[in-house]
Amino acid sequence: MNRIGKSTLVFNNKPRVIGNYSIVGPKEGRGNFAQYFDKILDDDTLGENTYEKAECRLLEQTVKNAIGNAKLHPNDIDFMIVGDLMNQITSSSFSARSLQIPYLGVFGACSTMAESLALGAVLVDGGFANNVVCGTVSHFSSAEIQFRYPLELGTQRPPTSQWTTTASGATVLAPHKTGVAVTHATIGKVTDWDVSDVNNMGGAMAPAAYETLKQHLNDLSIDPDYYDLILTGDLGKLGSEVLMDLMEHDGIHLGVNYSDCGQMMFKNTQKTFMGASGCGCGASILNSYVMQRLKNKSLKNVLFMATGALLSPLTCQQGESIPCVAHAVVLKGEDYV
Amino acid sequence: MNRIGKSTLVFNNKPRVIGNYSIVGPKEGRGNFAQYFDKILDDDTLGENTYEKAECRLLEQTVKNAIGNAKLHPNDIDFMIVGDLMNQITSSSFSARSLQIPYLGVFGACSTMAESLALGAVLVDGGFANNVVCGTVSHFSSAEIQFRYPLELGTQRPPTSQWTTTASGATVLAPHKTGVAVTHATIGKVTDWDVSDVNNMGGAMAPAAYETLKQHLNDLSIDPDYYDLILTGDLGKLGSEVLMDLMEHDGIHLGVNYSDCGQMMFKNTQKTFMGASGCGCGASILNSYVMQRLKNKSLKNVLFMATGALLSPLTCQQGESIPCVAHAVVLKGEDYV
Repeated sequence: MNRIGKSTLVFNNKPRVIGNYSIVGPKEGRGNFAQYFDKILDDDTLGENTYEKAECRLLEQTVKNAIGNAKLHPNDIDFMIVGDLMNQITSSSFSARSLQIPYLGVFGACSTMAESLALGAVLVDGGFANNVVCGTVSHFSSAEIQFRYPLELGTQRPPTSQWTTTASGATVLAPHKTGVAVTHATIGKVTDWDVSDVNNMGGAMAPAAYETLKQHLNDLSIDPDYYDLILTGDLGKLGSEVLMDLMEHDGIHLGVNYSDCGQMMFKNTQKTFMGASGCGCGASILNSYVMQRLKNKSLKNVLFMATGALLSPLTCQQGESIPCVAHAVVLKGEDYV
Repeated sequence: MNRIGKSTLVFNNKPRVIGNYSIVGPKEGRGNFAQYFDKILDDDTLGENTYEKAECRLLEQTVKNAIGNAKLHPNDIDFMIVGDLMNQITSSSFSARSLQIPYLGVFGACSTMAESLALGAVLVDGGFANNVVCGTVSHFSSAEIQFRYPLELGTQRPPTSQWTTTASGATVLAPHKTGVAVTHATIGKVTDWDVSDVNNMGGAMAPAAYETLKQHLNDLSIDPDYYDLILTGDLGKLGSEVLMDLMEHDGIHLGVNYSDCGQMMFKNTQKTFMGASGCGCGASILNSYVMQRLKNKSLKNVLFMATGALLSPLTCQQGESIPCVAHAVVLKGEDYV
């Protein structure tokens, strides 16, 4: 059985990262990770006449470049596992249309990068695929229009809000013998602690991260200090504090090895309140800073845990609270597999 | 390698169907498959005050009953792979919230049942899971509101239109030695032949079915008569004729062993023009009529090919044509594995 505990997949054949790429928007390019991203856009429209088309183009370029980074052509890729925040994940489907790779669309909101990596690793580890590309994208402007208000309104943002990143990240996995390996993935349950404030995504998602992290540590019988980096996707400043508090309450201390992509993406001067969000946030930091440090061996053992708020504007209007999910993926440097 | 040809997954361990269930709405319950469905609703609101909540409840009940049909409890299920047509697949996420099964959300529009079955079979075949539940749902009223017009308008339907089914189907897969087996799955590419008429889904999706069917036959080096039933999801009358024409043009004859769920669901007197659509259409017929015939051995070898139109109202408004996808899954009766 390639599973340990209740819900942790074990990849005994150790699928490897053979290519990865990240592209971010101009604001993200002035943030804390500027030096790590593969490409920083000057123009977040990418020459398109709508932000939705721009988002699609952003994912397409990221996936294509990740494949190029693996020294492959889209024809060499067996399956493309991608998702995004748009209604009917159209950025993903339209990207798959132009790339012409057999397509598995997934939806996990901002947990998508972890879900796609987990499923990609399953396909490679199980011998179902040679090369799989996994990825996701988010765009500030398309997300704002769809989930909140027209940009032109200039609506005031509450202090608990996060800023949806314009960013995309993609990873190519293959059954190689060298390179960063994906060794485990814990698939989360949907967790809802009755938070219904759509301007407090971090607070809503923290319990899902807590449940999945506890399950993961329990399944593998390890402590948090097993990892030299535990990285949540986009809980932001408030959400990551809630996660640390919840863990502390159970006697588990998340120390200096814990960080959150949402908290770290932007500089404090960039006025994003609780930090960044959006599925591109964790995906772009994973596929730049984290992969580079795993490759240069300054990191050896990383738990990447992306969290997603599975709401829609309609479910909020109908009075529902916000169901959330978190999936965790273990990445190891090649000397530590 | 557990793959044959370009994009067909091979399940050497033959994951088996150990439980399945179908629930349909009142109109579907007066159609051609009335005697096969497990449950026919008297009330398509399921007691909820919105159609979106009704759709969520419908999926939840179907999944729960499929698990019960497998003589299992939701706690026994390792992973739940579901998707639907709603924005941010909220019917699936909210069902997963109440069922508390580790959750992998997928989106393939009306191809979802095939996508979830394929991924479920991968997890079971690869030894990553013991029990996986796969499923999908659609609801006439929630889909009409979201994709077309308010129901109260009574908008006239054009002759090429199809009627979104209120229906749900779910399948439990496990590594058993007996029962209906899933042996192969072909993952489709996104195909777009520039159809932009949102009232002609069958015409838009037929090329995707054509591409995937050709790929499948080619990957396995077989002819259509290898199967005693080739069943497309919901091409409807027009779409299934287009598929037959396209195949005929390539010298491949789809004969009496070819049918389409969308064409067959309703009686001609039910005024649905080109027939049924919606991801619940194929899912409910697969998990009733087809499974029953595979179990009673009047069918031995079935290719279930669900097709999805990956549009959103927004992409149409922005002048895009309709990208489509089709995934195919092979199901075999236990004496023919």
